[in-house]
Amino acid sequence: MNYPVGIKQNGKKITYYGNRGMSLEEDINMTNSYYREQNIAVIYKKPTPITITKVDFPSRKEAVIKEAYFKTPSTTDYNGIYRGKYIDFEAKETKLIQFPLKNIHPHQLTHMKQIIEHGGIGFFIIRFSKFNETYLLEGDKLFEFIHTETRKSIPKSYIEEKGYLIHEKLNPRIDYLKQVDSIYFKGELYEKNAKK
Amino acid sequence: MNYPVGIKQNGKKITYYGNRGMSLEEDINMTNSYYREQNIAVIYKKPTPITITKVDFPSRKEAVIKEAYFKTPSTTDYNGIYRGKYIDFEAKETKLIQFPLKNIHPHQLTHMKQIIEHGGIGFFIIRFSKFNETYLLEGDKLFEFIHTETRKSIPKSYIEEKGYLIHEKLNPRIDYLKQVDSIYFKGELYEKNAKK
Repeated sequence: MNYPVGIKQNGKKITYYGNRGMSLEEDINMTNSYYREQNIAVIYKKPTPITITKVDFPSRKEAVIKEAYFKTPSTTDYNGIYRGKYIDFEAKETKLIQFPLKNIHPHQLTHMKQIIEHGGIGFFIIRFSKFNETYLLEGDKLFEFIHTETRKSIPKSYIEEKGYLIHEKLNPRIDYLKQVDSIYFKGELYEKNAKK
Repeated sequence: MNYPVGIKQNGKKITYYGNRGMSLEEDINMTNSYYREQNIAVIYKKPTPITITKVDFPSRKEAVIKEAYFKTPSTTDYNGIYRGKYIDFEAKETKLIQFPLKNIHPHQLTHMKQIIEHGGIGFFIIRFSKFNETYLLEGDKLFEFIHTETRKSIPKSYIEEKGYLIHEKLNPRIDYLKQVDSIYFKGELYEKNAKK
């Protein structure tokens, strides 16, 4: 969800610490557009899964959905192809100083595990909005935490240590493929694939 | 869309020639479930893209979408990972004896081109419901037709010649990965990757 700066949500004032006031989802969508335009990668956010229960047809050409419900997602939100490899990730932001595991659905964890088993690149992008810091955390590192710890939240220090800080800039806003290069492609640069 | 056998749509009777009365989408979804359960591949249909314009919150936990519109898809409907490779396809069925190219959105063609350029496996699954025949046609073969022909529909004979007939059975209903094996993996069998 993205709320404009200053707007109240459920009567509670939302304070933005980030200087741009953009949600993580918007930042990633803009980054993915940049990657597609530059012919670097083809990665999209999947549409929100819903169950449609009522549709009206006010005209022959137009259909209006009059009743629908949000569904629990069975997969992660983002996937695509980069350097010939299947890539898959989930992005979450938190206002807390640790990352609550309940922010990720069990289905999404199962999905991520399967992707990694099948040879895909799978990770999480986690933003601590209070600190304006965004990290890439490999799927395996998150599973390691779940298997060794009983805590319901990942401390920020764990993510700082095991993850990779993503440098935020103007365009692309969060250049996460730089981190993907250094983790999964041993630091080879993607620029050689790009058009320009 | 899937209509039960015998139901009238826009006052026109729909006749089903297929003996199971299942839509191509249902067949593919069931096939993909089978592939996931057998740990053969992780392939999903993307949710239908919509624009939500009105949401009600009748209770704290529940949100009901009260107004939304269908969006033109920017990508194909299905993607995932198989044998470590990114896989992407669009599925369409026609009641005609040829395949109208207008059934595929220009965005989807552009997307498919990009996927193939980036080293992914991209194809179309086309069902001729009148004949109860389903074919896999490689993305490149469809582009070849578009570039060399001026016709707005692909004749069935072209798809018979350049594509691959998918054998329909009980489970998986349309085992399209068999064709993917023979085209993209030179006939190696996928069974060796499966659990059982």
